[in-house]
Amino acid sequence: MMAGVEAGRHHQALAAIVGAAGVRSPAPREYLSDGTAGRGLEGWADLVVLPGSTDEVAAVVDHCYANDLAITTRGGGTGFAGGAVPQGGIVLGTERMARVRAFDPLLWRIHVEAGLPTAELQRLVRGSGLRFPPDPGAAEQSQIGGNVATNAGGPHAFKYGTTRAWVTGIEAVIPPGEVVTAGGPLRKDVAGYDLIGLLTGSEGTLGIVTAVWLRLIPAAEAALPVAGLFPGSEAGCAAVEALMGSGVVPACIEYVDEPALAAVGRGFPGGAPGPGFLVLTEADGSAAEAVAGRDALREALDEAGATWIAAPEGDGIRALWTWRDSISPRVTAVRGGKLAEDVAVPVDRLAEALRGATEIGGRHGLEAMSWGHAGDGNIHTSYLVAPGDIGQQGRAEAACEELFDLALRLGGTVTGEHGIGLLKRSHLAQRLGPAGQRLNFAIKRAFDPKGLLNPGKG
Amino acid sequence: MMAGVEAGRHHQALAAIVGAAGVRSPAPREYLSDGTAGRGLEGWADLVVLPGSTDEVAAVVDHCYANDLAITTRGGGTGFAGGAVPQGGIVLGTERMARVRAFDPLLWRIHVEAGLPTAELQRLVRGSGLRFPPDPGAAEQSQIGGNVATNAGGPHAFKYGTTRAWVTGIEAVIPPGEVVTAGGPLRKDVAGYDLIGLLTGSEGTLGIVTAVWLRLIPAAEAALPVAGLFPGSEAGCAAVEALMGSGVVPACIEYVDEPALAAVGRGFPGGAPGPGFLVLTEADGSAAEAVAGRDALREALDEAGATWIAAPEGDGIRALWTWRDSISPRVTAVRGGKLAEDVAVPVDRLAEALRGATEIGGRHGLEAMSWGHAGDGNIHTSYLVAPGDIGQQGRAEAACEELFDLALRLGGTVTGEHGIGLLKRSHLAQRLGPAGQRLNFAIKRAFDPKGLLNPGKG
Repeated sequence: MMAGVEAGRHHQALAAIVGAAGVRSPAPREYLSDGTAGRGLEGWADLVVLPGSTDEVAAVVDHCYANDLAITTRGGGTGFAGGAVPQGGIVLGTERMARVRAFDPLLWRIHVEAGLPTAELQRLVRGSGLRFPPDPGAAEQSQIGGNVATNAGGPHAFKYGTTRAWVTGIEAVIPPGEVVTAGGPLRKDVAGYDLIGLLTGSEGTLGIVTAVWLRLIPAAEAALPVAGLFPGSEAGCAAVEALMGSGVVPACIEYVDEPALAAVGRGFPGGAPGPGFLVLTEADGSAAEAVAGRDALREALDEAGATWIAAPEGDGIRALWTWRDSISPRVTAVRGGKLAEDVAVPVDRLAEALRGATEIGGRHGLEAMSWGHAGDGNIHTSYLVAPGDIGQQGRAEAACEELFDLALRLGGTVTGEHGIGLLKRSHLAQRLGPAGQRLNFAIKRAFDPKGLLNPGKG
Repeated sequence: MMAGVEAGRHHQALAAIVGAAGVRSPAPREYLSDGTAGRGLEGWADLVVLPGSTDEVAAVVDHCYANDLAITTRGGGTGFAGGAVPQGGIVLGTERMARVRAFDPLLWRIHVEAGLPTAELQRLVRGSGLRFPPDPGAAEQSQIGGNVATNAGGPHAFKYGTTRAWVTGIEAVIPPGEVVTAGGPLRKDVAGYDLIGLLTGSEGTLGIVTAVWLRLIPAAEAALPVAGLFPGSEAGCAAVEALMGSGVVPACIEYVDEPALAAVGRGFPGGAPGPGFLVLTEADGSAAEAVAGRDALREALDEAGATWIAAPEGDGIRALWTWRDSISPRVTAVRGGKLAEDVAVPVDRLAEALRGATEIGGRHGLEAMSWGHAGDGNIHTSYLVAPGDIGQQGRAEAACEELFDLALRLGGTVTGEHGIGLLKRSHLAQRLGPAGQRLNFAIKRAFDPKGLLNPGKG
């Protein structure tokens, strides 16, 4: 931490930029942790700065760069990789930059500032019959800037792609305080290198995303889910492949493994499925098409040996997705805490990965629960811990390390959508290889030569 | 050009890597030009090298980097921006690397080498009921590596995105001769910066793409086009917006302007439409859905004031797309040559851009013909020239410059899908701005510190 007199000087300079109400010191605790708080992760920072415009962000970065102050950018603070946990310097919160700059429903596009909550964006476009497909968890809290900075996914990334697929333009501030824009309200642009792709998913380590232009699509008339229960993960993973062979493009292919389903099955709309491995899929499109698709998917689940099938209608559909969104917090509630990872593997290695994730937990005396985006080979595995049980926490950390090794051995990655953040840095080199890592370092240096943007991350 | 003795030394060293049959010197002329040959663009090179494997590419790059030899990578040579036109050094052709390394139809993925012709890839996956959606022109000649290196688009990029959306992994050789892989047979991976995005569309200036993992989707059961004729570009562009407001997601929204239609209308299946501005769209999905979608699109065209509507069926559909693919060569044939550009603008500026493109031609005494991907705001404008008419050629170059300025003024870009290549370098800075350009330079330096990869491009 910096000395008081120095902190006072920065406070004054930053308040001159963003206004007195936009600087908070000492940093309030809620700005020092994110979705990893449950595993005890908390950072430190001297000041919290809340700019209200892109120009203010540029001036803040300029001040910080001139004074060697680190900057951790924070959106909604819902990340699961510690990406928003500061390691000193300032926290730059984007919450005051939440305007919709332009919305052209007839042209399927919107221009918004980084701090707009994801759910607010989704509601806004839905009101005009449109859809912004990325649907990461915690949409009420998360902000679109954070979704872009992590290239967020969600269940429907299976059919619709991750956030990157929907960003046509980015406005960002890069060191030493310049505003750069790439793309715009354009659907195609191949002039220059893909700065949009670089900034998307860079977790605040290359620049600070201040606004984005997003592509939208007409909302499907109907989206009809169907769930099937299988005797175990082998049969469930075979069902996932059967869905891919059904001729239909499912809107999502989710799964909930046996231990997770045992913990959260109550609350499933229409009554808990029996014990087993749950596969949840959905067909969307026009009303007729969704029905035909849902029937084809149901048939595929049936032929794959489902022991129970449910296809909710009407209000049951909303209830099903509310239930799906509740899995993560409810699993946390089982023991009070969890270490949650999100490795991804090629789809044909899913069964192996799931078996391995459970075995790893067993070896460390931990309950393991997994769910996630089966169609994308994206596994969210949680090892349950009781808060304050240091031994259990340590064993869970070791289990996560083994899980990363397993994913890499299966040709997968240490993170499908949550990001590298603080937590997976040591595995990044393993995933990238020496040449890839050298390029990553070189890119970082090109954007942030002083290494002040979100240090210790990515 | 290098001295004969030096060329001989390199010939020998490179032949030791790729075999004597894989080195050609002097460079055959067909390796010195690309799709821009019609405007007289030809480069120069000392040698052509045709490696047969990734390891050979790495060894070639190692030799070139150690000896300060420039490398221009060449796929099918169908580019329209001069990206494959060498400016000295060697041409590295990928045609001998055309293997399918793995094809997993049930998992919707394929792993192929860079030299595989695009049309061959498309046929192969179609044989298993799948589809690789990018459909740039000249698919028989173009190679998948070139599609990736230019982030190629095509009509169906409107619904399905450009090549980038389908690449889940890249294997590339980067200076000074290292093999780097990013992603793989994975559908999601956010570990590290987006090297896939960076290499895609980088036109051989950052690395040499040797193989890619591609995502596929089940082919739609049916794809039903419908075309409408409008009195002029204003009415036609209004129809484009009406299609976007129809509630259907069209698979494509193409247009052919009045002068182009006058030149190529003959051959339109079922007989030439009368004079006017043609809008061509398509609905795909299950048979029933395609019919319902096509009817909705037809209604939108009708309500937008189409004076003539055609909705081919059966063999007529293939004939329609064959006709669409023939527009570019047939426009070339009108005067023997053309300067073809592909600016892109926000969709709501399309009418202005089209009017401007024609006016620019008029001011320079040139016939202008435009067609392209209206839904993406992507305009292919050609200024016709007679081969050998130096004055006309010069006026056409000036017209293209004005077209670039116009696109930028309308908030657009100098290239929607063809790339920067040799031809649009002077406009790149204008599009990127100083901060964007600085980042582009820094990225280039990070990958290719000696500046030997495709010098003079990008």
